[in-house]
Amino acid sequence: MDRQMADIFTARLDATAGQVVTLLKSLLSGSPLEGEIVRPDELMAAMRHGVLNGGKRLRPFLVIETARLLGAPDAAAARVAAALECIHCYSLVHDDLPAMDDDDLRRGQPTVHVAFDEATAILAGDALLTLAFDILSAPETELPAETRLRLVNQLARAAGVGGMVGGQSLDLRAERVAPDEAGIVELQAMKTGALLRYACAAGAVAAGADDQVLARMTRFGEIVGLAFQLADDLLDVTSDAATLGKAAGKDAGRGKATWVSLHGVAAARQRLEQLVEEASELLEPFGSEAEILRQTAGFIASRER
Amino acid sequence: MDRQMADIFTARLDATAGQVVTLLKSLLSGSPLEGEIVRPDELMAAMRHGVLNGGKRLRPFLVIETARLLGAPDAAAARVAAALECIHCYSLVHDDLPAMDDDDLRRGQPTVHVAFDEATAILAGDALLTLAFDILSAPETELPAETRLRLVNQLARAAGVGGMVGGQSLDLRAERVAPDEAGIVELQAMKTGALLRYACAAGAVAAGADDQVLARMTRFGEIVGLAFQLADDLLDVTSDAATLGKAAGKDAGRGKATWVSLHGVAAARQRLEQLVEEASELLEPFGSEAEILRQTAGFIASRER
Repeated sequence: MDRQMADIFTARLDATAGQVVTLLKSLLSGSPLEGEIVRPDELMAAMRHGVLNGGKRLRPFLVIETARLLGAPDAAAARVAAALECIHCYSLVHDDLPAMDDDDLRRGQPTVHVAFDEATAILAGDALLTLAFDILSAPETELPAETRLRLVNQLARAAGVGGMVGGQSLDLRAERVAPDEAGIVELQAMKTGALLRYACAAGAVAAGADDQVLARMTRFGEIVGLAFQLADDLLDVTSDAATLGKAAGKDAGRGKATWVSLHGVAAARQRLEQLVEEASELLEPFGSEAEILRQTAGFIASRER
Repeated sequence: MDRQMADIFTARLDATAGQVVTLLKSLLSGSPLEGEIVRPDELMAAMRHGVLNGGKRLRPFLVIETARLLGAPDAAAARVAAALECIHCYSLVHDDLPAMDDDDLRRGQPTVHVAFDEATAILAGDALLTLAFDILSAPETELPAETRLRLVNQLARAAGVGGMVGGQSLDLRAERVAPDEAGIVELQAMKTGALLRYACAAGAVAAGADDQVLARMTRFGEIVGLAFQLADDLLDVTSDAATLGKAAGKDAGRGKATWVSLHGVAAARQRLEQLVEEASELLEPFGSEAEILRQTAGFIASRER
């Protein structure tokens, strides 16, 4: 996209991130809700550290923009977005643990187990995961009961053993036994793809979209997920730690195969372009209203960190 | 309770545990559900190891018996019970981790991180936690949408930062700074009390009980939770590892204060009797129909492991 358009897009992305962060801060306040006893200070601090640490809030943005395009109420969409971000952030907190990726830095800041301790990081992740389902199911998410239930159920499937967590398990295994190309695609569709797919599907569900529109937005989310992962794998090869704010070359260093390592940088860049094109085609029925989502796909494919 | 009654009670507890285990086995099958991609073998095996390892299934029993007393459909109650057991079992898997309690044995078997590895144990816990919300929200839990949503929301609050996970965080802190008696009571109400309270409340919610009955069963669950914890603390002082199937004297060994260490064994036994009496009084309006729940309170207070 051209420079001016990119600036407008980035401003909108930042503004939405700001709104989501404000909501997340209030959801992560120390005041116990009905049915809670107390919210322990240290655990709350660790949860906030894991969530309120910058980040582009790409998944919330996708929820909110999809919901807006299809006519869901803004406030409800924002809560769905916040719930999804809690899931994403918990997965990072657990992923960074010594027994997992053993990362000390995340977005240039100490990870939760470094800033607190390992046990607190495990519990903070557990609490964020649980909070996501609290947020979606609470009456404050003003959507019909059937809609909220679908959002809960689809999030559980996207995030659980058959989605994100399962993908992390396959990723651990991939360090011992190299998967073939189909295995890599499956692993990535679960580990990073499932939440991005959910983001777009959830926006459509929140808007009460019909099955055809839901299927289209779900597919859009899948394409975005593929583009995201490919861009990530490219960055691992072509970027450096200072730009990424985390260690670069990690996958190659661990001998972890990616689509990029199998097919090369040039082929990966070409495939990225195709994915952006495909994403754009999926949005055609929505005309210029979908311009922001179209740009999002482009942004994801061309991001530098 | 007398010997014959105890045998009848134990037979019913065992039979219900058997039903719950059958359901859990099917919920932990390797076949992906709609919206899932694959269920990785190793992760599924770790999840099964964490769940299908014996255990009295006390929380499921409380859900099912409360639901039965108040007229909820059996099949739905069983799914609510299974969801709650997934939460309980995930908490044990994470609690046993080296960074937490560092336990190698659970019910005489190697813990998940010993039988598999630490990363897999973290992920298996995450996946079980997530699965609980899948089970509750799925249409197969045949209850009105509003009811399922309440069950989801109350479980999130019972299990999350203001409930069980928060209690574990307070428990970690208690090893560094000894809490006063009020602090101990609060910690225990969260760490072990919240799920037992939920068990009884959820049975009532599933049955569509009115607010008064719901409040009564919630209070019954609280009393059961207090009795459970007190019996547990007593066992820690009076039992040995062979009987418990896990390390005994752990709390005392770590200098962890409990109600028993503050007030002594005799006072604790007296308080246990009072709690069983109070639980029994709460059930009076239900007459002889509530005999099983009455016995459950007695069983919990007098259990030997």
